[in-house]
Amino acid sequence: MQTIRVETPTAKYDVVIGSGLLETLAPRIARAVGRLPRSVFVLTSPEIWALWSKAFLRSFKEAGVEPPVTLFLPPGEQHKTVKSVERLLREMVKAGGDRSTLLIAFGGGIVGDVGGFLAATFMRGIHYVQVPTTFLAQVDSSVGGKTGVNLPEGKNLVGSFHQPRAVFADIGVLGTLPDRELRAGLMESVKAGFIRDRALVRFMEEHAKEILAREPRALERVIAASVRMKADVVRRDERESGLRMILNFGHTVGHALEQASKYKAMLHGEAVAWGMVAALAVARRRGTITGGQMERMEKLIYRYGPWPKLMVAAAKVMAATGRDKKNVGGVRRFVLPLGIGDAGVVEDVTAAELEAGVKYMLVRARTAFSP
Amino acid sequence: MQTIRVETPTAKYDVVIGSGLLETLAPRIARAVGRLPRSVFVLTSPEIWALWSKAFLRSFKEAGVEPPVTLFLPPGEQHKTVKSVERLLREMVKAGGDRSTLLIAFGGGIVGDVGGFLAATFMRGIHYVQVPTTFLAQVDSSVGGKTGVNLPEGKNLVGSFHQPRAVFADIGVLGTLPDRELRAGLMESVKAGFIRDRALVRFMEEHAKEILAREPRALERVIAASVRMKADVVRRDERESGLRMILNFGHTVGHALEQASKYKAMLHGEAVAWGMVAALAVARRRGTITGGQMERMEKLIYRYGPWPKLMVAAAKVMAATGRDKKNVGGVRRFVLPLGIGDAGVVEDVTAAELEAGVKYMLVRARTAFSP
Repeated sequence: MQTIRVETPTAKYDVVIGSGLLETLAPRIARAVGRLPRSVFVLTSPEIWALWSKAFLRSFKEAGVEPPVTLFLPPGEQHKTVKSVERLLREMVKAGGDRSTLLIAFGGGIVGDVGGFLAATFMRGIHYVQVPTTFLAQVDSSVGGKTGVNLPEGKNLVGSFHQPRAVFADIGVLGTLPDRELRAGLMESVKAGFIRDRALVRFMEEHAKEILAREPRALERVIAASVRMKADVVRRDERESGLRMILNFGHTVGHALEQASKYKAMLHGEAVAWGMVAALAVARRRGTITGGQMERMEKLIYRYGPWPKLMVAAAKVMAATGRDKKNVGGVRRFVLPLGIGDAGVVEDVTAAELEAGVKYMLVRARTAFSP
Repeated sequence: MQTIRVETPTAKYDVVIGSGLLETLAPRIARAVGRLPRSVFVLTSPEIWALWSKAFLRSFKEAGVEPPVTLFLPPGEQHKTVKSVERLLREMVKAGGDRSTLLIAFGGGIVGDVGGFLAATFMRGIHYVQVPTTFLAQVDSSVGGKTGVNLPEGKNLVGSFHQPRAVFADIGVLGTLPDRELRAGLMESVKAGFIRDRALVRFMEEHAKEILAREPRALERVIAASVRMKADVVRRDERESGLRMILNFGHTVGHALEQASKYKAMLHGEAVAWGMVAALAVARRRGTITGGQMERMEKLIYRYGPWPKLMVAAAKVMAATGRDKKNVGGVRRFVLPLGIGDAGVVEDVTAAELEAGVKYMLVRARTAFSP
């Protein structure tokens, strides 16, 4: 088990990573928040609840406290909406929620984002705890306090920064995660390695087999390193005014791919995988990485694939990048790798450079996994 | 002109109170936020915009900058909804808003609450400035960072704490405020005096005529004292965990009256006027105020009336208090006057005591303004 401390100007909390956390959740949460309030809600998905409710509820029963009131969010980005938020807030009021209510977000990234936003806005803010159940949510979205939902115009355009009181990442829960989701989630760890952690890159190169076989110690190592990197960045820049932007490595083009596909054809991590390839190509043209570094980094991305084919024209991807919310005041910020384990934010990447990166990516999407 | 500094753990900003602020708004806002960003929106009501858009836009023209993009919220609590928020957020995206966008909330309390919530949630938080146009918004809702909207289940159940970057309260704008709204708004100043400021109570006793005639110096004096009191309380308790609750003096029963009337029959300040009468009666029974103090305080409340008759049964009001969101963990917190200029929060007011207060209020609602 590993515990990583996250400290920001507005909050301090622990991310606990290990096996068997679910079965001991109630006392762990009680310790993190002082004591369990009278009113506790859990937001989850029907799938996760069907698989894990028994383990989840055990520690509440053992502690002799009422089980949390269950709120459900159906799976899929199409439910990550303002409408869902309103429905869930109303359910919370009707079920007796008040300002002392504690919310537990028990699910993947969407449940975490929506749950965090419910906690940020219910009666002007209540405490919440993240219990992420996907690899992606464990390494990325559950840490850092980003919450929110989509608008028809784009992803995550509505939200708040609202830090959880604790994060419990149970590796055992990953046992039921579909293989495709695990591999996609691992792209956030690859990203973490690329931008800040050479040792993690090496570990993921050398232990891909154990990681993909879900060997608990290998997973714990990767998750802990990824969370440590993210916690370090969030500590220095909670509200993404500068440094935190490097976490968006691969995300400019990644988000564009998601938008161009209307978030349906691919998982977030899959889009980021291809987005990183595009960013590497931009960096290579600029000479901030060598040909050898690029080859090694691309190889690691493909090692955790295969990634889905991209049925989209370069022009469409380019158009989608123009609406990316990371464009501040018309300037196009871009995260550029500066070697393996280092990256920076630049503002002068031209449309032509970006397009060249996108085109390289589209070529590799046709060739990288061909026999 | 008076400038009052608000300092909280998350923000520091000035509340500027005076005449002619509207005509010099652009440079004032620029100074408050560093410089005007490329993208500026103003949320307002059609009524306010019809009356004041020319004055509002003058300083932008003089500064040679683009006028803000206008967003409209129709008047009335029935539009203070999650649905309005979603519509407005989408309009902001479509009109090119980004993370550097500045929002100006130019209107009464509803525009301020909704505008603040837009700013709190648009792309996880942007800067905003309050330009309140009603007396109530100038003395109360524009200061302190409370933002949000209603749910069908109750008022202000969704929201955030999000502090503005500045507040500009132009007394000249009050010239077009309906008389009934001015009088209702003055109840928040009476409240401020009752809980923290004996000198303000005396001033409002002695200068009711000038205040109701909207004599600028009298209004500036009352607004500044009210804001100073609120700023002091907010500074010590930004998130309403303790002290800030005293600002809810008169609001337990006041909110219940609003709920029982479905927010239609009366203005917020009118409900608070009666709510204060009920709270005074509870205090008198407990002996925390003398008969003489109660008489003097009631007299001041009625001096700014008449207040609307209450067509509601005591039982209905009592039922509505049970859903008040200031009930934490089932405990009924209540703000009790402890003399003129002093109040405290108690948790042991029984339903019977509260009901006696409500019944006294209902009697006074029949008799106080009878010839």
